[in-house]
Amino acid sequence: MTQTLQKISSSKTFEGELTKYGFESAVLGGLHAQFNLFLPADAAHGKVPVLVYLAGLTCTEDNGAQKGGFLGVAASQGIAILFPDTSPRGAGIAGEDDDWDFGTGAGFYLDATKPEYAKHYNMLSHITVELPQVIEAAGLPIDLNRQSIFGHSMGGHGALTLYLSSKTEQYRSASAFAPISNPSKCPWGEKAFAGYLSGGVAEGIKHHDATALISRSKDPVHILIDYGTGDHFYKQGQLLPEKFLEAARDAGYDEVQVRVRRHEGYDHSYFFISTFASDHVHFHANFLKQKNKM
Amino acid sequence: MTQTLQKISSSKTFEGELTKYGFESAVLGGLHAQFNLFLPADAAHGKVPVLVYLAGLTCTEDNGAQKGGFLGVAASQGIAILFPDTSPRGAGIAGEDDDWDFGTGAGFYLDATKPEYAKHYNMLSHITVELPQVIEAAGLPIDLNRQSIFGHSMGGHGALTLYLSSKTEQYRSASAFAPISNPSKCPWGEKAFAGYLSGGVAEGIKHHDATALISRSKDPVHILIDYGTGDHFYKQGQLLPEKFLEAARDAGYDEVQVRVRRHEGYDHSYFFISTFASDHVHFHANFLKQKNKM
Repeated sequence: MTQTLQKISSSKTFEGELTKYGFESAVLGGLHAQFNLFLPADAAHGKVPVLVYLAGLTCTEDNGAQKGGFLGVAASQGIAILFPDTSPRGAGIAGEDDDWDFGTGAGFYLDATKPEYAKHYNMLSHITVELPQVIEAAGLPIDLNRQSIFGHSMGGHGALTLYLSSKTEQYRSASAFAPISNPSKCPWGEKAFAGYLSGGVAEGIKHHDATALISRSKDPVHILIDYGTGDHFYKQGQLLPEKFLEAARDAGYDEVQVRVRRHEGYDHSYFFISTFASDHVHFHANFLKQKNKM
Repeated sequence: MTQTLQKISSSKTFEGELTKYGFESAVLGGLHAQFNLFLPADAAHGKVPVLVYLAGLTCTEDNGAQKGGFLGVAASQGIAILFPDTSPRGAGIAGEDDDWDFGTGAGFYLDATKPEYAKHYNMLSHITVELPQVIEAAGLPIDLNRQSIFGHSMGGHGALTLYLSSKTEQYRSASAFAPISNPSKCPWGEKAFAGYLSGGVAEGIKHHDATALISRSKDPVHILIDYGTGDHFYKQGQLLPEKFLEAARDAGYDEVQVRVRRHEGYDHSYFFISTFASDHVHFHANFLKQKNKM
């Protein structure tokens, strides 16, 4: 089923165009969903590859577009960026808005299996299946055979797990800023898995934990992760990037395939993200600008 | 009188540091005032020049820092950026919060002369006198002999008028994104002058209108202005950059001294600003990196 896209607003930027779209999302249970799409000027002359940016807890489709510092580099590389929202909005489930780290603004990029959330909380299918369909149906100049994915915090978790759980089929590369790297072992992830999944944390480990997924992965991967030592959530043990790194090395991945960089003093904010924005876009450009998948 | 600075928050970014400070502002009638200061890594080795960024209507000290895209370029050029607020906060004057384009968030970078506003609404002195004093007293590594100024919309008006009304003594160069260029001839400016100044629009023309000031200027100037043809406020006649350009040419300034660039399709948002952020910082760097004023 395809949806009709509604253009909500648009701004010219870096010779390209950032447009906010809305549509009625079947995958999110018929709710109104929004996303931002940046198209570089190159898109006027043919389809361009796309980098999907997944934002963190409490964010929307706007945070990365406004504060990430990605658009200028993407414009120069001829790459589109798709900014989805972080959860369904207005599902009306009891308790959905009680906490900032669960429910609205905190969809955790999975498909819920608990009955009360299963109708609406399907951000995994929203991003991997529905948004590509909607973009294709609207005739937007995106080459869906050339997708990569990145994200911040909960969105870093999303980028790594969507990349690894598709066995790297859908995305050519993945990167993350301060990702929740081992959610089955941290309070945010335990809460999300217990809340959204009928099989709880055990089901989360099976399908939605980047550290568990990389430890079982046999495919060639292209992964870049950055985090800062001044990040409060890192210090609280919510992110656990070392666990991901350890599992990747144990699984035989070297520093070219899985690169994890530790930055002295940087925190969890978009001031950290924007510092390394150019590195990430260029990392993905290596793979997205190839005609065929590497 | 010097004030004690309170450090509110700080984030490492582009190897430098963005810090939010607060203090009790004598010039703003004893109210708590905040600003952001970006220091590049070079500031660890000696004083650096500073670029002052004035934000537009409804904004705070945060908008430019978060969305402007200035920090990476400033870091590479070894330049600090000072982000003041746009008005006093909490003066408690009747009617102060009724409109988004007057009062709180809309100080218009002048010193009010109407009795009800004169105690608090003194953003001109706050920026040109008080903030430099506060920075000096705190021992921050800023070379106050090397200041330039830029801004957006109302802040573009501020940048141009503070530059020109100091006879270019305090600032080495000025630039603006979509500035309110001739406020005595547009609704926003007329409302501000009528509201803040006991002499109304006539007093505004005398001291706070960039077009009037440039027409009377005899000093060498270094000015860059960018605006977009897709800007609703430009189309509404709130900005009038052509009037400024015409007055500058009539006063004998050529394209090197006063450069006004018109960009097809760009709007009033930070997506426009960030596109030309690098141009502006590099423009000011030409002057700020000289040992002596040009």
